[in-house]
Amino acid sequence: MGDQQQPQGTSIGDSLKLPPGFRFHPRDEEIITFYLTFKVFQRGFTCIAIGEVDLNRTEPWELPGKAKMGENEWYFFYQKDRKYPTGMRANRATEAGYWKATGKDKEIYRVTGGVAPPVIIGMKKTLVFYKGRAPRGEKTNWVMHEFRLEGSSRLPCPTSSSTSTGALKSSSASKVVAALAFMHPCILLSLLDLI
Amino acid sequence: MGDQQQPQGTSIGDSLKLPPGFRFHPRDEEIITFYLTFKVFQRGFTCIAIGEVDLNRTEPWELPGKAKMGENEWYFFYQKDRKYPTGMRANRATEAGYWKATGKDKEIYRVTGGVAPPVIIGMKKTLVFYKGRAPRGEKTNWVMHEFRLEGSSRLPCPTSSSTSTGALKSSSASKVVAALAFMHPCILLSLLDLI
Repeated sequence: MGDQQQPQGTSIGDSLKLPPGFRFHPRDEEIITFYLTFKVFQRGFTCIAIGEVDLNRTEPWELPGKAKMGENEWYFFYQKDRKYPTGMRANRATEAGYWKATGKDKEIYRVTGGVAPPVIIGMKKTLVFYKGRAPRGEKTNWVMHEFRLEGSSRLPCPTSSSTSTGALKSSSASKVVAALAFMHPCILLSLLDLI
Repeated sequence: MGDQQQPQGTSIGDSLKLPPGFRFHPRDEEIITFYLTFKVFQRGFTCIAIGEVDLNRTEPWELPGKAKMGENEWYFFYQKDRKYPTGMRANRATEAGYWKATGKDKEIYRVTGGVAPPVIIGMKKTLVFYKGRAPRGEKTNWVMHEFRLEGSSRLPCPTSSSTSTGALKSSSASKVVAALAFMHPCILLSLLDLI
């Protein structure tokens, strides 16, 4: 730290020691570019901030305990389940309830700089958790933001090898998505959802 | 990083390399506890995230260039100037305009846990920058949040030496504060203000 009198911080795993006030707080664009894209094209990808979870077998209140880090928000990759074997509709039910989409999906852009227009790279869907069974579920304070790749980010990197092409094929067959969720008023749960 | 396949991140100075999505994003309580309190009782305190600035000689749009880090928000310590030599009223004017308080100050608590009630440790004031001279200034999108110590955080640590007592005396004679400001819709400027 040189002559810096930095207060003692937090150790994350055994690889990253953060001073107080530093935390994983990614922008939407960073989630897509640096994490979800890697995970989609390289399924074995792991990182220090984002765990993996089976969303259908995990209730929202169990997620903090399964996260790699986070205080009021937690990030996960997950494999989206299909509601019906032949369809693309997602199954977001758990034993205790279900996640229901709300509002309109938000487009996520990469700002290219200069005169080039922003490029769409992902979408963000907001979902609320309801206890019970639809359509009579009881709304809770758990909210999730679900991210998925869109546009150019769904294409493999031009310089990458045929491994990426293989990954692209499998991602075309099973739509690639990502998600983040949070509990009002102060708990933010963030999921990176992947199929 | 062990077997983690962490994407390449950002170097902060020469002492801290952050993976993508990690940034300085302190809670109000952390600003008070880990940064402003240190600075108040040890004026030579420095850290990697928070620079120092003369707010009266710096226009808001010049602040990003003077920050140690930050993209949409920037943190500084500063010495609050008095409007009149004999009073406690702050002078928050610059050559181009002035910062004007808005809304009600927010109390900042340290959650002690257990059955003990939360302890007040600081206050947060919101200010907006107006171009020109009061009362006819033109409102801008620059907003600042100003933090100051309050309650128990203004007392020196019981285990510390007489150095802290001396610092406490000087801080009693010149009120200790801190601040954060941001530019809507996306630029957040954060100041830690100190007198």
